[in-house]
Amino acid sequence: MEVDEVVCLPRLSRVAVCGGTHGNELSGVYLVRELLKVKKGVMEKEEEQEEEEPLSVLKVLSNPRAMQQCRRYVDTDLNRCFTHIVSLSPSGLTSGTVPYEMIRSRELNAMLGPKGRSGAVDLVCDLHNTTANMGLCLIAYSDCDWICLHIFRHLQRKMPDIPMRYIHFEVSNKESYSLDSVGKHGFAMEIGPQPHGVARSTVYTAMKAGVQHMLDWVCFFNSGTLFEGESVDVFTMIKHIDYPRDSETRNITAAVHPHLQDRDFCPLHPEDPLFQTFSGETLRYKGNEPLYPFFINECAYYEKGIALSLARKRRVLIPTIRVQTEQEQAAHVQELASEEEE
Amino acid sequence: MEVDEVVCLPRLSRVAVCGGTHGNELSGVYLVRELLKVKKGVMEKEEEQEEEEPLSVLKVLSNPRAMQQCRRYVDTDLNRCFTHIVSLSPSGLTSGTVPYEMIRSRELNAMLGPKGRSGAVDLVCDLHNTTANMGLCLIAYSDCDWICLHIFRHLQRKMPDIPMRYIHFEVSNKESYSLDSVGKHGFAMEIGPQPHGVARSTVYTAMKAGVQHMLDWVCFFNSGTLFEGESVDVFTMIKHIDYPRDSETRNITAAVHPHLQDRDFCPLHPEDPLFQTFSGETLRYKGNEPLYPFFINECAYYEKGIALSLARKRRVLIPTIRVQTEQEQAAHVQELASEEEE
Repeated sequence: MEVDEVVCLPRLSRVAVCGGTHGNELSGVYLVRELLKVKKGVMEKEEEQEEEEPLSVLKVLSNPRAMQQCRRYVDTDLNRCFTHIVSLSPSGLTSGTVPYEMIRSRELNAMLGPKGRSGAVDLVCDLHNTTANMGLCLIAYSDCDWICLHIFRHLQRKMPDIPMRYIHFEVSNKESYSLDSVGKHGFAMEIGPQPHGVARSTVYTAMKAGVQHMLDWVCFFNSGTLFEGESVDVFTMIKHIDYPRDSETRNITAAVHPHLQDRDFCPLHPEDPLFQTFSGETLRYKGNEPLYPFFINECAYYEKGIALSLARKRRVLIPTIRVQTEQEQAAHVQELASEEEE
Repeated sequence: MEVDEVVCLPRLSRVAVCGGTHGNELSGVYLVRELLKVKKGVMEKEEEQEEEEPLSVLKVLSNPRAMQQCRRYVDTDLNRCFTHIVSLSPSGLTSGTVPYEMIRSRELNAMLGPKGRSGAVDLVCDLHNTTANMGLCLIAYSDCDWICLHIFRHLQRKMPDIPMRYIHFEVSNKESYSLDSVGKHGFAMEIGPQPHGVARSTVYTAMKAGVQHMLDWVCFFNSGTLFEGESVDVFTMIKHIDYPRDSETRNITAAVHPHLQDRDFCPLHPEDPLFQTFSGETLRYKGNEPLYPFFINECAYYEKGIALSLARKRRVLIPTIRVQTEQEQAAHVQELASEEEE
């Protein structure tokens, strides 16, 4: 790829903003509720694009039952249900035997997908909170999705006071498991620190601004704006580290070390303090290379056996992009259709 | 009461340290687990008091089922079950129909109480966490329990780096509802901010030090140390304020205002910002007098309809105290026995 080359990408006609995928991550719950009140106009700026096809923004409360109980999930983590998702068949799945979130994931796939098919929405932005001190992160499965990366750069420029990172989970589209994988493009917008079950005004406001700037960007893009290529820092997840645990009870025997707590995205070097045991001992990082920790002491990951994740930082060159012309788009649609037939 | 007068109080022979009364407040869970490992010696300092009757320290994990699920409670808030508590009768209560925490509260009353009777433990220290920025607080039902107030002053002196307050809930002993009300003396040791379901090392360490200093103080007291009278700031709870809510759905429509969030124990004046609605509007405090907010944006109180509590600050003069001599103690026991017969 030449740096000067302009990459032309299909128009983004349908965008989904999802909250409450985890029912106790409240910023997204309250933001989507608020967006649902605003019938039209404010977020979609329809009045400004009279001449163009309006952007369709779907606002989705993903897990209403978990929200109602203010829990992450009812039966199983909804945001791990989208790996081998299939559309809800007419006979459907009956509740009772099947975990609620398995049923709900099929409903969401029918609404926003089908995953991997041409009928899927163009972009899914799924709103999350973390107890970790991560600022605002976009988390995506790709480090070459120019739409996601350009949105990220736009948010960074528009919100200079918010620490912002792009996290890349290197998982194939086939193995991708989260709600945002249902869209043609997608990412989780993750903001912290905020305790689950709590709404902090500053976190809510940052999320609201992030979503607004994301939608603005989509409108600019659809209107033909050229977005210049540049380079972006990408944090690629390398591995997870679990808490030290009692071999019999599996209870944790240490907390994240005070020197590491809240230091998400600050390099962790070999022999740096990692944990402090409940009897007061310091345990150190035994890796061979400095890596970047994130999701440090995330509440929901105790049960997943993750005390923190470690990433490698790379600089990724993203190309100049613009929306396809109508002719280009028509050709592209035909191309996709023939791919699906194969 | 003359300031110079020395108040002589009964020896504290049995102390209970309780964790996990709320199963997702993890500092107390891990601290009590740790204390249970330390069979003897370290916390009880038995080796230092060879000549004296050793202090009996009961370490209690109050709500094992809630701990196992990492939830505040299973059926109902255990820490509201001790108002009209009665001992577990031999026939007992059978599970299934009765909320688990009602059964567990009777077990705990049998273990640590009976509440209000001479057989109860001398002191209950119940360990809690809050998502509010409250530092370390002792919360008690009395502003004239000299044992609790002297322990508070001891902790303040020993832990000068930790913001520390004494909160008084003005509730009669009859109406007191929490686990610590089962002891002859009792308080909750509440430390925050910490998300529920998360253990932060600094919070754990502060709680461990607080419990150690509390037990040290009891040993000093029992050994005959004279504790000088002095004055102490006491925050007496006046009222609670709920979140603004949608009149139909009862969903909250605002978060605590960024200017108030994390400002626990900083005076709140009439017309100060109180909430910020999800549409961006500022709502102001309409009270008539400045009061001291605390439990600002505590996670567990959303369901109780409490966004924050407000207190009045007073200076309370506490007298010089010492332990009763054996003769004084014998007379006191006789007095209590005749009271119970009545």
